[in-house]
Amino acid sequence: VVVSSFCPATSTSGDETRNQLLTREKMMRVGGQLVLTREEEMANQRLRALKEAEMREALRTGSILPSMHFFQAKSLIEKSKVFNILKKMPKGAALHVHDFSITSPDWLVKNATYRPHCYFCFTRRGTLQFRFAHPAPPTPKPAECPQWVLLEKFRKGLHNVSDFDNSLLRNFTLMTENPHVTYADQDAIWAKFKTIFFVLRGLVSYAPVFRDYLSQGLEEFYQDNVLYLEIRASLYPVYELNGTVYSQEWLVRTYEEVAHNFAKAHPGFIGIKLIFSDNRTKNESLIKKSIQTAMGLRVKFPGIVAGFDLSIRGSGHLRGPRSQGQSQDFTARLKPGISQRLQNLEGTPVDRNLLDAVILNSTRIGHGFALSKHPAVLAEAWKKDIPIEVCPISNQVLKLVSDLRNHPAAVMMAAGYPMVISSDDPSAFGARGLSYDFYEAFMGIGGMSADLRTLKQLAINSIRYSTLSETMKKSAMETWEERWQKFVAGLARGPK
Amino acid sequence: VVVSSFCPATSTSGDETRNQLLTREKMMRVGGQLVLTREEEMANQRLRALKEAEMREALRTGSILPSMHFFQAKSLIEKSKVFNILKKMPKGAALHVHDFSITSPDWLVKNATYRPHCYFCFTRRGTLQFRFAHPAPPTPKPAECPQWVLLEKFRKGLHNVSDFDNSLLRNFTLMTENPHVTYADQDAIWAKFKTIFFVLRGLVSYAPVFRDYLSQGLEEFYQDNVLYLEIRASLYPVYELNGTVYSQEWLVRTYEEVAHNFAKAHPGFIGIKLIFSDNRTKNESLIKKSIQTAMGLRVKFPGIVAGFDLSIRGSGHLRGPRSQGQSQDFTARLKPGISQRLQNLEGTPVDRNLLDAVILNSTRIGHGFALSKHPAVLAEAWKKDIPIEVCPISNQVLKLVSDLRNHPAAVMMAAGYPMVISSDDPSAFGARGLSYDFYEAFMGIGGMSADLRTLKQLAINSIRYSTLSETMKKSAMETWEERWQKFVAGLARGPK
Ligand SMILES: [Zn+2]
Ligand SMILES: [Zn+2]
Repeated sequence: VVVSSFCPATSTSGDETRNQLLTREKMMRVGGQLVLTREEEMANQRLRALKEAEMREALRTGSILPSMHFFQAKSLIEKSKVFNILKKMPKGAALHVHDFSITSPDWLVKNATYRPHCYFCFTRRGTLQFRFAHPAPPTPKPAECPQWVLLEKFRKGLHNVSDFDNSLLRNFTLMTENPHVTYADQDAIWAKFKTIFFVLRGLVSYAPVFRDYLSQGLEEFYQDNVLYLEIRASLYPVYELNGTVYSQEWLVRTYEEVAHNFAKAHPGFIGIKLIFSDNRTKNESLIKKSIQTAMGLRVKFPGIVAGFDLSIRGSGHLRGPRSQGQSQDFTARLKPGISQRLQNLEGTPVDRNLLDAVILNSTRIGHGFALSKHPAVLAEAWKKDIPIEVCPISNQVLKLVSDLRNHPAAVMMAAGYPMVISSDDPSAFGARGLSYDFYEAFMGIGGMSADLRTLKQLAINSIRYSTLSETMKKSAMETWEERWQKFVAGLARGPK
Repeated sequence: VVVSSFCPATSTSGDETRNQLLTREKMMRVGGQLVLTREEEMANQRLRALKEAEMREALRTGSILPSMHFFQAKSLIEKSKVFNILKKMPKGAALHVHDFSITSPDWLVKNATYRPHCYFCFTRRGTLQFRFAHPAPPTPKPAECPQWVLLEKFRKGLHNVSDFDNSLLRNFTLMTENPHVTYADQDAIWAKFKTIFFVLRGLVSYAPVFRDYLSQGLEEFYQDNVLYLEIRASLYPVYELNGTVYSQEWLVRTYEEVAHNFAKAHPGFIGIKLIFSDNRTKNESLIKKSIQTAMGLRVKFPGIVAGFDLSIRGSGHLRGPRSQGQSQDFTARLKPGISQRLQNLEGTPVDRNLLDAVILNSTRIGHGFALSKHPAVLAEAWKKDIPIEVCPISNQVLKLVSDLRNHPAAVMMAAGYPMVISSDDPSAFGARGLSYDFYEAFMGIGGMSADLRTLKQLAINSIRYSTLSETMKKSAMETWEERWQKFVAGLARGPK
């Protein structure tokens, strides 16, 4: 209610200041500098209207999805009109995903475990393990696995196969109905998280499954309108039925082959690159060797081996619970001298990882969850144009933040810090491709201000901050732009 | 492990950059500019050692207290050595507390409800109400309260009085063993929060209780080494046994008297000021009247009426759930023209409250939870030296943030944004004074970097950003400094 007795001069000046500040903030945000075409403006209007309606409804019902745990929000997100637009949106690239988490666990159950010669057992600690072999796996059985059971035969003896298949599924994902009860703390969820990879290994490391798993993962990202991936690859040994074990070179070559074949069959697909990520290295003295391996592979396969993931430094498993600082890793550029320079960083505390990332001119910073708490490091990283890889669902599921509106990237997105959105381990979190993470970023982290500009910038960033060559970036950008225009035209035109 | 083959030049340069960045960050933080005396340095060393030991232990056991809900962390906090130091620390002033939440609920049960002529009833909706009266409260009874029961008589008929008293206690506080279950969402906790004030009103608005409640509240803050308070006062009508109802002027005078008497009996106590906070104003057109009331009181009682709390604007109850932006209010300077200028702000969306606070040159911003997401407004507020009032436990209990290491003030503390720590409604949250909130700020929001400098600056800020006159600030600072030196000497000297 504006009362008539006020002084107009004061009011105008107040309004001016307000508008100046609001305009300044609009320009600062991620995407704030983009000038939209007429059609993009129309599409943006429609998107904003849908977003606002959804937020109003959320406030009315109290179901603010980004503030809920993803496991509980997932089915609600799937009903969202905004989410369905995000699914159709060409999102560019997924720059932070891990090798054994790109493909839906459903596929593993329904495809991989139904193949012939699949054996399973329970270790003494009760953990499920798989092994493909023909003839049957070696006797004497390894101590870890007292009894191998042929899955095909076992299924034949079951009354209810789908119950059994569902129980298998629960071994491949963190998904659970009541995550707050199932995972009381970070230790509990990390224990389960590690177990999942242990369970998956025997399945995914079987050469024929390995190829198809990768191909299926690319398919899921492609269907989610992601055209390029940088996969953090551990290069764990892959085996054949007869026990043959392949070298890391074989693995890199196979990644290259599968991606090549996939691209041939999928128009617009740009490809993949690998970021060598040796999670096994627990002993610090092995790091030099690991980096040398990466350098060797880079020389042999310059088209696909792009970087080295430094999440392994320090305690040997930065991908672990507790300290918030621990959740960052970074991708180093593999170039001469990097090995020595990395060695120099040994022995520094884990929480200085961010500093190291900046000093080493890393390509990108994984998560960067604590970066906003380090204003000087942040300023330096910004000057060097080092983006963060924001993985909202991962950070929530692994208990770094519960309400995603409080994610530290919210502050950085508002300030315009360079960033990309990725999904880390979508299969473990019950997600798929990038759309779920884009939804959380758009509705939660971005708040009311995020709009089509934000989304466009995030997609552009994913190509800009990739390890593609400049020529490849240009070509990737053209492919993306063509799709973007189609998407925008469809969105501007209206209903679905 | 530093390998011998590295190039020393590179290493030095890396170390230099690292040290430069670390030093820069150290200087930027809240308190980073303070130069400590030799004795303060010694005290700081001891404090840091205790803090580090406590954090190491927390990482070992997984019980990171600032990441736990306060209701569950409280008893563990009380065992902390750091907490016991913070209790002894002269904390300066409490600048953001509400009138009906400064005194322990225990006192209400054990003192107020044991006074003669105390009646209670349950409303039709099952809510407890109190009323002191002699003779018995009026008949016909008000529709809200079908039957008044004399508490004294009722207690005489009970087998187990302490069970009953505990059930009373649960009506005065949000405390519960399993807060995540009891309060599923913000609506649930706000419903209970509002009910608490409804229950308290009949007790605390009884003139003799009112005086003692205030005095007891000051006592609790004084024992917690807080020497000055700015109380957000609603000035609800206060009544006598015979039904007499006092004016707002009587209330202000009584606040002044009680504080005056308290100061006489408590050496070093500086006093209180009131920030008029008319939470009842649901109708926007009443705001002008409310501001005029505040201005009138300010003219009559310039020594105690200091400001006007604008949390009531917009929807009429900014102190409400859901939108994160809603949690901010601000204290306006009461000076000529403020009424008109406030009127001009009517009709702007609630989430622009922050902008208004800055444009109006507010004294302080309450909470400022969303400020870090508004970089341009933040810069403007910083330029104008407008501090935020950080109330960690309040924000956690009212479900704005769960892990306090993620509190937005963490970023602002690292960047050196001016702030004070306060406790909002300590009695409702199961806290007392300021020490619990200081603990959360020191161990959670401040992270590993917060040390004695941080604490000293926060205490200094609480005087600097108060509404005291410059002369009074100087004198308050002297009182505080004297106590600070004693505290530092004790801490430097060692064990307890
Ligand atoms: Zn990752
Ligand atoms: Zn408050």
